[in-house]
Amino acid sequence: MTYCVGLKLNDGLVFMSDTRTNAGLDNFSITKKMFTYEVEGERAITLMTAGNLATTQALISLLEERSKAPSERNPTILEQPTMFQVARLVGSTLKEVIEDSRLEGQTSTSSFKASVILGGQIKGGAPTLFLIYPEGNFIEVTDDAPFFQIGETKYGKPILVRAYDPEMNFEDAIRLLTVSFDSTIKANLSVGLPLDFHIYAQDSFAVGAHTRIEADNPYYASISESWGDALSNALAQLPSYTLDPS
Amino acid sequence: MTYCVGLKLNDGLVFMSDTRTNAGLDNFSITKKMFTYEVEGERAITLMTAGNLATTQALISLLEERSKAPSERNPTILEQPTMFQVARLVGSTLKEVIEDSRLEGQTSTSSFKASVILGGQIKGGAPTLFLIYPEGNFIEVTDDAPFFQIGETKYGKPILVRAYDPEMNFEDAIRLLTVSFDSTIKANLSVGLPLDFHIYAQDSFAVGAHTRIEADNPYYASISESWGDALSNALAQLPSYTLDPS
Repeated sequence: MTYCVGLKLNDGLVFMSDTRTNAGLDNFSITKKMFTYEVEGERAITLMTAGNLATTQALISLLEERSKAPSERNPTILEQPTMFQVARLVGSTLKEVIEDSRLEGQTSTSSFKASVILGGQIKGGAPTLFLIYPEGNFIEVTDDAPFFQIGETKYGKPILVRAYDPEMNFEDAIRLLTVSFDSTIKANLSVGLPLDFHIYAQDSFAVGAHTRIEADNPYYASISESWGDALSNALAQLPSYTLDPS
Repeated sequence: MTYCVGLKLNDGLVFMSDTRTNAGLDNFSITKKMFTYEVEGERAITLMTAGNLATTQALISLLEERSKAPSERNPTILEQPTMFQVARLVGSTLKEVIEDSRLEGQTSTSSFKASVILGGQIKGGAPTLFLIYPEGNFIEVTDDAPFFQIGETKYGKPILVRAYDPEMNFEDAIRLLTVSFDSTIKANLSVGLPLDFHIYAQDSFAVGAHTRIEADNPYYASISESWGDALSNALAQLPSYTLDPS
């Protein structure tokens, strides 16, 4: 599995992804699921992928035109005029990769499906996020649904639902996402450290802070350790239940 | 779907279940998923069920011997000498119900599967919990895995993992479970109010406090309202992330 989140804030966009990939329980490794592209001053685009690794790698290779000779390669998403057109291109490429697997008569116990969170900004437009489905269609972020998750989404959702605020700054967003990822990692073996994040500042039209949080990262360890206590304290502050003496 | 939790505490056992049942999105209703039985002074047993409603209703009917004339009915689980034997009986009955559905050649887009949390105490033994699988086999609670969840388990698991403490009293356990259920209800349409709970006090050998928390319950509303703030405050107390100025 995988866990990726894209948040839209008033200040810009924040992306976080884990890096665990596995086929069964005894075949797992680290793989990057976050990909960033920029034309400085003109656009910055981030993709995060979840699902079948062969599908997502083929998708990224096709978008980066790795089928072409190295000298002729230019990621096609850098040529689209709007984020909407980028989403259409990613969606149609994803659908094509999945259909190719089917047409070639492959069978597998796992499916060839994959999903993508796409976000970024192109000059003339606002920063935005899209969630792209295996069928190639997609939805765009709104004020009512201001973040997208893909992969193993359930464990980390309650804290996002409760604590997300579009006015939060990037540091607070990283803290919130770290807790959401820690809750998931504590509960599910298929999501694991290290974590990648990327912060896109609105109207910067450039890839922003872009860091890998390794397994021995002291900040992650401090969050993971203190969150249990913080939660217990939060719980203790809630009104007590009084059992009816009857 | 469904959400049920059974906790083992030093003081006894706590059970909570939701009551929503649905077939598709436009056919939902309230159904009880928690069943209690007692022979006062000798045993108290609680069952909670998740899965196909026809399967779980047939299971309960068979355990209560509703196939017999009313005068001859006596829940068979009241005749087993130990909780382990009760678990075997429930498991074999559950397996039989599921196999009956298959043998009769029924087909369905949903499966006939169901799971059960069984808990209680019989004189001469300690209070205990079992998680019974559709295959009829089961696992017993341990100090390392001191609670069981069935149904839509993921949203409500992180708070249990972090805040459960075997030394907590019953009131604190109800508060913890209320938060775990609220997190699930906020995130998933297939789990809904009202909630049933049952508290079994160790060595009481009687059904204990046993209440339905209705949708307009003021305690539930106060937890649901204040948990968002409590979580945000807890998050704010965690160490801040500092973005590298580079």
